Amino acid sequence: MTFDYAARRERLAGLLPAHEVQALLVTAPENVRYLTGLASSNAAVLVRADGSALLATDNRYIDVARALDVPAVEAADVAGALASVLEEPRTGIEAASMSVATYHHLGHRLGHRPGHRPGEVLVPLGPVVEGLRTVKDDAELALLRTACELTDQAFDDVRQRIAPGMTERDLARLLDNRMTELGADRPAFDTIVAAGENGAIPHHAPTGRELRAGDLVTMDFGARYRGYHADMTRTVCLGPPAAWQRELYDLVVAAQRAGRHALAPGAPAGDVDAAARSVIADAGHAEHFRHGLGHGVGLQIHEEPFLGPSRTGRLEDRVPITVEPGVYLPGRGGVRIEDTLVTREGGPELFTKTTKELLVL
Amino acid sequence: MTFDYAARRERLAGLLPAHEVQALLVTAPENVRYLTGLASSNAAVLVRADGSALLATDNRYIDVARALDVPAVEAADVAGALASVLEEPRTGIEAASMSVATYHHLGHRLGHRPGHRPGEVLVPLGPVVEGLRTVKDDAELALLRTACELTDQAFDDVRQRIAPGMTERDLARLLDNRMTELGADRPAFDTIVAAGENGAIPHHAPTGRELRAGDLVTMDFGARYRGYHADMTRTVCLGPPAAWQRELYDLVVAAQRAGRHALAPGAPAGDVDAAARSVIADAGHAEHFRHGLGHGVGLQIHEEPFLGPSRTGRLEDRVPITVEPGVYLPGRGGVRIEDTLVTREGGPELFTKTTKELLVL
Repeated sequence: MTFDYAARRERLAGLLPAHEVQALLVTAPENVRYLTGLASSNAAVLVRADGSALLATDNRYIDVARALDVPAVEAADVAGALASVLEEPRTGIEAASMSVATYHHLGHRLGHRPGHRPGEVLVPLGPVVEGLRTVKDDAELALLRTACELTDQAFDDVRQRIAPGMTERDLARLLDNRMTELGADRPAFDTIVAAGENGAIPHHAPTGRELRAGDLVTMDFGARYRGYHADMTRTVCLGPPAAWQRELYDLVVAAQRAGRHALAPGAPAGDVDAAARSVIADAGHAEHFRHGLGHGVGLQIHEEPFLGPSRTGRLEDRVPITVEPGVYLPGRGGVRIEDTLVTREGGPELFTKTTKELLVL
Repeated sequence: MTFDYAARRERLAGLLPAHEVQALLVTAPENVRYLTGLASSNAAVLVRADGSALLATDNRYIDVARALDVPAVEAADVAGALASVLEEPRTGIEAASMSVATYHHLGHRLGHRPGHRPGEVLVPLGPVVEGLRTVKDDAELALLRTACELTDQAFDDVRQRIAPGMTERDLARLLDNRMTELGADRPAFDTIVAAGENGAIPHHAPTGRELRAGDLVTMDFGARYRGYHADMTRTVCLGPPAAWQRELYDLVVAAQRAGRHALAPGAPAGDVDAAARSVIADAGHAEHFRHGLGHGVGLQIHEEPFLGPSRTGRLEDRVPITVEPGVYLPGRGGVRIEDTLVTREGGPELFTKTTKELLVL
């Protein structure tokens, strides 16, 4: 399956009039990749209202760029090179990713061209391409499904080796290595392994702490496959769980289920969060779940839409997203359960297939 | 060995008057880490001219932040939280990393406070903290030395397994896995493996192409160890080299040696580049070496200083840097040889110890 980049650029071009610009200077790397197929740390693409486009990248990537379906120019200063050929009275820039330094540099450059004044020419815009990226096509969903399969498989292969005496770092390494052996580009983000009391820290970085009998152990990890990011979390128990561990686990399972069931095209993002959060709050743990319920995944590990108490907007159809409630008890430990799913009419499709039963290892 | 973060902030504070600001709002993640020890994807630190500081990060990192030697506030909007407590008439911002959106958001926020006007309050500055980071202390050099040792060791362990039939991806995976097994945080960047004709692409991403007898195979990789990045490249030959391969290899060895020998405190960056580049140009291959000679390494894989034809400035003492000339013949293949070294009075210290003899595997 391949991507129809020209169609994506056409769709973007169709959005430009509503933003009162005649072109958009795209500089966020994932957006450049989405619109052209070029994966580069230094590239930009100018998309005009008529759908035409011009790509710029440096000598490291120019040969790859020239094989794509967009004309490409070689430049180290990619945004500057595209700004120098602007003919549009108003060109949008991506305010969330363009740096102040680049913005001033471009303004200065344009200010020296007759008839142009910086404030008129470059218009800071919000996440225009990110909005297009939210709803995925079949080719994207296929890559995400594979990314999630690799993630499930790595967990299944590694879980049998989880044992007291290994460190959080050892376990993170096993997961990372297995994902790349199975065909991942690389881990989708820095893998989290948090044992025992460390499980109370949602974003704990793995340490030399050894896993011990009686620990709850939380693993948050995922494979990146051809640019697309999977995200999954499971908490397991080393040996039979204590009553409080079982209770905490069952609570998070119930909250996660409520969140998944609330996922639907048209659902307000805040309502999905509330569906899971209220389960935790009703159990008296509101203050022990302080992060959002989930986030979109795709070319970035965290992308639109976000699920949280103050998030606005409604979900659309075919949006891959995580549902990941957690309860964290300072000094004692925590539980988080996370799947990647995609919204569908008729109910979400579950990409993460690993069981949500409490695994006692 | 530990870092003296307070001393770093003091040094930064001492630089502020020259930039005509009374404080600096530091938002680049590596700079925040350098000044406080906090490794976070969402944190900022305000450093004032008297050396005092205030850190902001979100709920995922706040517990870690509170254990550091700087007062910390919890906020999702980290720059906004610090801007809201500004009392200085002029505060610097990091123009190279702050986004246009954040800059406008802060200006808007400050504009609503009596007596403040945006243009007066926030002053876009260049790489101030990056300048401090260029010269490394002993603790940093120790971490970089270890990062390079892990990289050397991974190459030594993997090279015996390089054989025809394995793919570029297989080989990249072996290197990545071995580095993390040996104790790396993770690979310092996306590992490059380029076989045969792909070796003509300096930043080639590994593919399913199989290694074949007669190939030159270039590997560019490195370990990240406790935040510090190693960088190394070697080109090997599968089976006895053809005359052109041997000739190309010897040329790059000579250029790399010339570049290393030119590395010295006080040397102009452009001169170091020219020392290596002239060797390649004299052999008639000027147009086949189109990238810069090297770059600083530290908390980032690419940082100040940069070695290239148009680079200005002089090297200082105790600056870790790469020397990595290459010659790339379109359609045929290429050779690149890269070490990480540190500038020293009396001659550079070589961190990358792997032989630069042509390895015939």
